[in-house]
Amino acid sequence: MAAERIYLDWNATAPLMAAARDAIIEALTMPGNPSSVHAEGRAARAVVEKARRDVAALVGAEPAHVTFTASATEAANMVLSPVYRMGKSRVSLGRLYVSAIEHPAVRIGGRFASDKLTELPVTRSGVLDLDALSAQLSAHDSADGLPLVAVMLVNNETGIIQPIREIAAIVKKCGGLLVVDAVQAAGRVDLSIAELGADFLILSAHKLGGPKGVGALVSRGETLMPEPLVRGGGQEKGHRAGTENLAAIAGFGAAAREMAAGLVERNAQISALRDRAEQAMLSAAPDTLIYGRSEARVGNTSFFHLPGLKAETGQIAFDLEGVALSAGAACSSGKVGASHVLTAMGEDAATGALRLSIGPATTDGDIDRFVAAFTKIAARRKPAGQAA
Amino acid sequence: MAAERIYLDWNATAPLMAAARDAIIEALTMPGNPSSVHAEGRAARAVVEKARRDVAALVGAEPAHVTFTASATEAANMVLSPVYRMGKSRVSLGRLYVSAIEHPAVRIGGRFASDKLTELPVTRSGVLDLDALSAQLSAHDSADGLPLVAVMLVNNETGIIQPIREIAAIVKKCGGLLVVDAVQAAGRVDLSIAELGADFLILSAHKLGGPKGVGALVSRGETLMPEPLVRGGGQEKGHRAGTENLAAIAGFGAAAREMAAGLVERNAQISALRDRAEQAMLSAAPDTLIYGRSEARVGNTSFFHLPGLKAETGQIAFDLEGVALSAGAACSSGKVGASHVLTAMGEDAATGALRLSIGPATTDGDIDRFVAAFTKIAARRKPAGQAA
Repeated sequence: MAAERIYLDWNATAPLMAAARDAIIEALTMPGNPSSVHAEGRAARAVVEKARRDVAALVGAEPAHVTFTASATEAANMVLSPVYRMGKSRVSLGRLYVSAIEHPAVRIGGRFASDKLTELPVTRSGVLDLDALSAQLSAHDSADGLPLVAVMLVNNETGIIQPIREIAAIVKKCGGLLVVDAVQAAGRVDLSIAELGADFLILSAHKLGGPKGVGALVSRGETLMPEPLVRGGGQEKGHRAGTENLAAIAGFGAAAREMAAGLVERNAQISALRDRAEQAMLSAAPDTLIYGRSEARVGNTSFFHLPGLKAETGQIAFDLEGVALSAGAACSSGKVGASHVLTAMGEDAATGALRLSIGPATTDGDIDRFVAAFTKIAARRKPAGQAA
Repeated sequence: MAAERIYLDWNATAPLMAAARDAIIEALTMPGNPSSVHAEGRAARAVVEKARRDVAALVGAEPAHVTFTASATEAANMVLSPVYRMGKSRVSLGRLYVSAIEHPAVRIGGRFASDKLTELPVTRSGVLDLDALSAQLSAHDSADGLPLVAVMLVNNETGIIQPIREIAAIVKKCGGLLVVDAVQAAGRVDLSIAELGADFLILSAHKLGGPKGVGALVSRGETLMPEPLVRGGGQEKGHRAGTENLAAIAGFGAAAREMAAGLVERNAQISALRDRAEQAMLSAAPDTLIYGRSEARVGNTSFFHLPGLKAETGQIAFDLEGVALSAGAACSSGKVGASHVLTAMGEDAATGALRLSIGPATTDGDIDRFVAAFTKIAARRKPAGQAA
């Protein structure tokens, strides 16, 4: 009898929460367009505005400062703009600085030309090199505009938490703006845009139990906003045109509300499961290399390398055992490439690493199943130095 | 007892079809990210590719030529680009020509600078002025690149069908590319991208019974494509980054499949209901002005003006009678403005017009209710020249 499959790839996409599912199904029954002024339109509008309050609350922001997008990727393309508007005035940003471990959606630089993009190194432990940031920003030539800096709060592969408050202090000292990709952080760490010192946050619904197809750009204030990326309609206060994705927005709001409640206790439980998995891995294969274990990490992620096992081979082996986990990020059309995060950390990225990422629905039994599969796969791998 | 409300604003957004709803709910249960290589990821990928085939079939295109976006607005911003790619070569488009009656998402010009945008006039009957198009394209200076022309197939306010084949012939003669906004046409007229002679079609799911939050850019070929708008991931063959909106795409596919079946018969029925509504309006208020009645029109739309009744007032009056219809388009955050379509047609747009738009679920009883409300509202309006 085939055992049920175990899904341990929550950082790629989290299963939909029941509350989000219910909110989506309810919204699907509403006929109106949120921009219509008739009763059906006003009812749809109310759903959007309720979700906006719930998403804002998750990250300590004002509802008016949440702009819904179709994805975090769209939000990144929107906010990484060399042109901003402050009322009717145009504000130029001269150069974009991104950490070398950003998600490709940020690392590619949005609307900045490639010669206006600087990649900031991380230390061997996977944390942004603050000295390099200071040096780069001190040397920034503001003739073309202020610096824009983008650093993620939680890395999607390693789960390492970046020291955003310190980064924000350095960025502010140089008069720059700070964008924080909080996609893997929201709902997993207690977070407030103001306390972080970020000017903008990027969020994704489907990483926190909401549906795919909706993200948000959250701003600290509302006067300074990027030039819109998607234009041609007055929705989202003119910041993002197109009929609102009513059902997905409703689901995002419901997931945000659920994740905001009991966040600390829930994440302690998740963290305990992850720690148990890691102890079991080290016990079954003491040569297992777990990245970022000595750093501040989010509690749901384990990024590991088994000497003698190529990540791609390992992923297939786990898949055949009924365990879904990933070899790095899932953002490139089914391809498994070398991890730019490992490369940035100075690791040998050629054989890659595997990522276990879990969530609120992960059970003790799931971890047992994972450990059993891990033990089996670890036992049959080639001796170190002969990666299959 | 309050009677049930009647929804006659399908051009703003169509109620979700049962088949689309079922497909969405099924997709919501799938945990995987379509870009993941494990079994869950592959199952999600299969849903996306099935929907791609169904959407392609609706417009006579190849599945490989369908790029899913978050909205028709996004597709418009994507395709209205001064930079295209043909393999690794850059192809420049020097100027964008749009009809004066395009949806704002097209009329604003996408990524063209405002001084590279030319608006083409329409005749008093609401059809693109073909002589003006020929004259403009003949005078086009190709030094900066070829001309890009965007004309909608069916106007969202009047329902008037534009002579796309003739337009395509003129555009081809001048070596230009033709983008056709088919948002209000797909599922309402039998349509094939090749027969139309269009290079690109813009589609929206929620206008044809699918969910809000998904659209598509359909291309005639696959070698020449616009520079991506949303970058930073390999999804959609690199043309549009971001995790696919699995559920919405599944719903789009299901709606497209339903709309493709029995299209001619269904639209004959819808058209008969619309015609009955128009006859009843003229009978109750012979001074009712119905726009585009002598032109080729799509069968589900009636755009009308009652002398002595401002459109905004009229919409509220219908809303209070339990009938949802609109005063022009619903794309600008609940505001009711003057219709740019009426202005382009040389009509007095100040008092505006009302739009009735129906669909497959509209019943005889709905039309009766509309006619009763119309008769009541027409009877109590101010004498002509004293619009309230």
